[in-house]
Amino acid sequence: MDNVLKEITPKSQDFSQWYVDVIRKADMVDYAPMKGFMVIKPYGYRIWEFIQQALDRRFRETGHENAYFPLLIPESLLLKEAQHIEGFSAEVAWVTQGGQETLAERLAVRPTSETIIGAMYSKWVQSYRDLPLLLNQWANVVRWEKATRPFLRTTEFLWQEGHTVHRTAEEAEQETRQQLAIYREIMEDWLAIPVIQGVKSAGERFAGAVETYTLEALMGDGRALQIATSHFLGQNFAKAFDIQFLDEDGQRKYAWTTSWGSSTRMIGGLIMVHGDDKGLRLPPKVAPLQVVIVPIARGQETARVLAAAGELAKRLAASYRVKLDDRPEHTPGYKFNDWEMRGVPLRIELGPRDLDKGQAVLVRRDTGEKIAVAQTEILTRVGQELDAIQRNLYQQAVEFREKSTRVIETYRQTEEYGYRGFFLADWCSKESCAEQLKAETGLTIRCIPLGSQPTSSHCVVCGQPPDKRVLLARAY
Amino acid sequence: MDNVLKEITPKSQDFSQWYVDVIRKADMVDYAPMKGFMVIKPYGYRIWEFIQQALDRRFRETGHENAYFPLLIPESLLLKEAQHIEGFSAEVAWVTQGGQETLAERLAVRPTSETIIGAMYSKWVQSYRDLPLLLNQWANVVRWEKATRPFLRTTEFLWQEGHTVHRTAEEAEQETRQQLAIYREIMEDWLAIPVIQGVKSAGERFAGAVETYTLEALMGDGRALQIATSHFLGQNFAKAFDIQFLDEDGQRKYAWTTSWGSSTRMIGGLIMVHGDDKGLRLPPKVAPLQVVIVPIARGQETARVLAAAGELAKRLAASYRVKLDDRPEHTPGYKFNDWEMRGVPLRIELGPRDLDKGQAVLVRRDTGEKIAVAQTEILTRVGQELDAIQRNLYQQAVEFREKSTRVIETYRQTEEYGYRGFFLADWCSKESCAEQLKAETGLTIRCIPLGSQPTSSHCVVCGQPPDKRVLLARAY
Ligand SMILES: [Zn+2]
Ligand SMILES: [Zn+2]
Repeated sequence: MDNVLKEITPKSQDFSQWYVDVIRKADMVDYAPMKGFMVIKPYGYRIWEFIQQALDRRFRETGHENAYFPLLIPESLLLKEAQHIEGFSAEVAWVTQGGQETLAERLAVRPTSETIIGAMYSKWVQSYRDLPLLLNQWANVVRWEKATRPFLRTTEFLWQEGHTVHRTAEEAEQETRQQLAIYREIMEDWLAIPVIQGVKSAGERFAGAVETYTLEALMGDGRALQIATSHFLGQNFAKAFDIQFLDEDGQRKYAWTTSWGSSTRMIGGLIMVHGDDKGLRLPPKVAPLQVVIVPIARGQETARVLAAAGELAKRLAASYRVKLDDRPEHTPGYKFNDWEMRGVPLRIELGPRDLDKGQAVLVRRDTGEKIAVAQTEILTRVGQELDAIQRNLYQQAVEFREKSTRVIETYRQTEEYGYRGFFLADWCSKESCAEQLKAETGLTIRCIPLGSQPTSSHCVVCGQPPDKRVLLARAY
Repeated sequence: MDNVLKEITPKSQDFSQWYVDVIRKADMVDYAPMKGFMVIKPYGYRIWEFIQQALDRRFRETGHENAYFPLLIPESLLLKEAQHIEGFSAEVAWVTQGGQETLAERLAVRPTSETIIGAMYSKWVQSYRDLPLLLNQWANVVRWEKATRPFLRTTEFLWQEGHTVHRTAEEAEQETRQQLAIYREIMEDWLAIPVIQGVKSAGERFAGAVETYTLEALMGDGRALQIATSHFLGQNFAKAFDIQFLDEDGQRKYAWTTSWGSSTRMIGGLIMVHGDDKGLRLPPKVAPLQVVIVPIARGQETARVLAAAGELAKRLAASYRVKLDDRPEHTPGYKFNDWEMRGVPLRIELGPRDLDKGQAVLVRRDTGEKIAVAQTEILTRVGQELDAIQRNLYQQAVEFREKSTRVIETYRQTEEYGYRGFFLADWCSKESCAEQLKAETGLTIRCIPLGSQPTSSHCVVCGQPPDKRVLLARAY
């Protein structure tokens, strides 16, 4: 192993350092000169674009349109929903000067946009005919975080936030769940990340929401990542921002609203679910490069092999995202490690003997399997293998999660597993039990899985009768 | 004419009010509660998405990749390029508080990103092998403007900014011009806006640039709009941010950089070039809706007509962006005005007699022409007419510009044209002449058109021997 890999700490040795090594070495992000800010480099940004495209298409298919709301929000607007501002006040960055003047009212750099959007919706919604109002925005947000980590928690991040208004509670609830289902579909089908769908407990709810739905995924180190959320806001924001409509029956009524979001954090999840000691493993659907061709030739064979590799690259490029790595300054071995580290799903090796046999060798990043394929069949076979890799990464993640999920009777059992993995248990709904759990084990209630029921007669903490089945984990 | 149009001030009467009326009534933007900020509504944002897609594809085809750099820039970085900060200091919004703490160093909300990107490039560029470095970013920027106008000048706007690094001055110059050519292509082929390509005079250059290339378009009121710019930055930013590389010859050298940008301002141009007294006229390539179908039926004919209109909408939707306007609460006449105001390129009217004759009537937004077309030919004909509209809007804009462009000998001649339109004249290159021109007429030097030469023996202001041919106009 040469120096490409020497610089990556093994995942098993120090997961946290491995994560940071991988994203740096794979050229996904870099640190900005200001603490807490990241620069998303092209290799990381391209993944974001693929996720954006997949989500955006589904949002549009379900009747949503994109719009854009201001970055800066007057403090007075932010203060209108009491719970909301309480939840966010510690994290807000404030603009206090514009040009040479000191502002009369400071402006928040949006930590989320419910308030400014609520103010606009109050103007736009007048009649039941204006409903449902289904908008989404792709934007940057800023939250002043103490401890940051690229993609997972950064002062600024990129996300989408959907904000919808409905005539009835039922319709708003249904929207909330529909969007959760879309997130689940993209997480599983595109990012190959299996997720648990659930409802947040009162203590973990979004500030100002009546109900928060969440997707929880299990990372390679046994910690949970909340990977997307969808909030039923009831009439809280409608009342705070006066979003009323004249209904068909001639009555003025408060509307029902929702909001739902997903962010560049998903890329962090992608890395932590699929990566291994060699670096990234990217699901083909979101991989910036799906295939890399490495010619293996020396001396007088070089020209012939390079020509054939160039031909092959051109043929594949019509259907796949392909790169021919013809850098003369690096050995094939270096290139193998380099592209494995960057997670390219499929490598094609092509040498003089392959050419003589009319074949090429495919190497799968997920399994390391080498497959000799006749030149005439490469195009088809590449497609099949990419599909297989996409499925296999998902399957491996499902198996890891199943292996790492334990049903427990008392929270003391979590110690023997090093507090790692998912734990399913019953809970009495008392926040005091949740607090004790967190204080003693670092575990939190990730969600109440959809459709779950208590299966025992005692809360995992206090032993009293439970009324909820919950998913516990240490979380990012 | 009913109330849809009553609310739009005629363009000929008050262009400025017409502009504001159109964007509000056509539902493109709304005003945010904070002065100077706009909300881009779905109908306006969709146009932005089409422009983004067209530009992004061309950037990618020419080897550029997207990345994302931080929104907030430390003051010390902003101060590194002296001319640059001088140009922007009056327009910067400052973040001075994060969470509960007052920041030790205030952070600028990016007015443009040369400085933060320069700081990163200085790390990334080490060897000639790292060059060229060709990145673009889609982002929001904030400039604290006194007077604002939706799309044209707003405190926050959306844009793309390309930032590239090169080994030689020639290569960087070529990049600057190539990107200008891409802007020109998208302006002319997609937005149907004819543009003059030119170089800015020293007094109008981007702060910190060696040369600024610009595209200047003529608006419907005879004023100019600078619609995209591309800057050759020489080694100014490379020196300020220490962007050096080890060249093949073993020498460390400063790199050559460029930046180029275009923004939501283009949408303002689109409106002001093509709009008429009835409202917007959108070129089909960037129109959120290309075709609207208006069924014309009463009483017992209604069901039959609506069914046929629905069928037609479904057939067209496979190839075009179509809407069936079946709102029962509005008359056909109201709908005609409504969609004309929103600039939909083609309307299809369908009534009982049309059905009996096996036809439909197409009505072009650009000419008002009505065309009866056999149902069997509609699909093809719609495509042809949309192409024709795209070309015609461009042609009309070219003709208007030609009609409004005058060659002048002395700047006093501009008075008889009310200082409106493009003026071509010779200039001695003295800033004092440019200042006198501006003070007395409001005209500025928009650019030195590419490839132009002086054709007379006297500067349009002072009468001294000229060395440049220039384009003059009052500008937005
Ligand atoms: Zn309990
Ligand atoms: Zn002069």
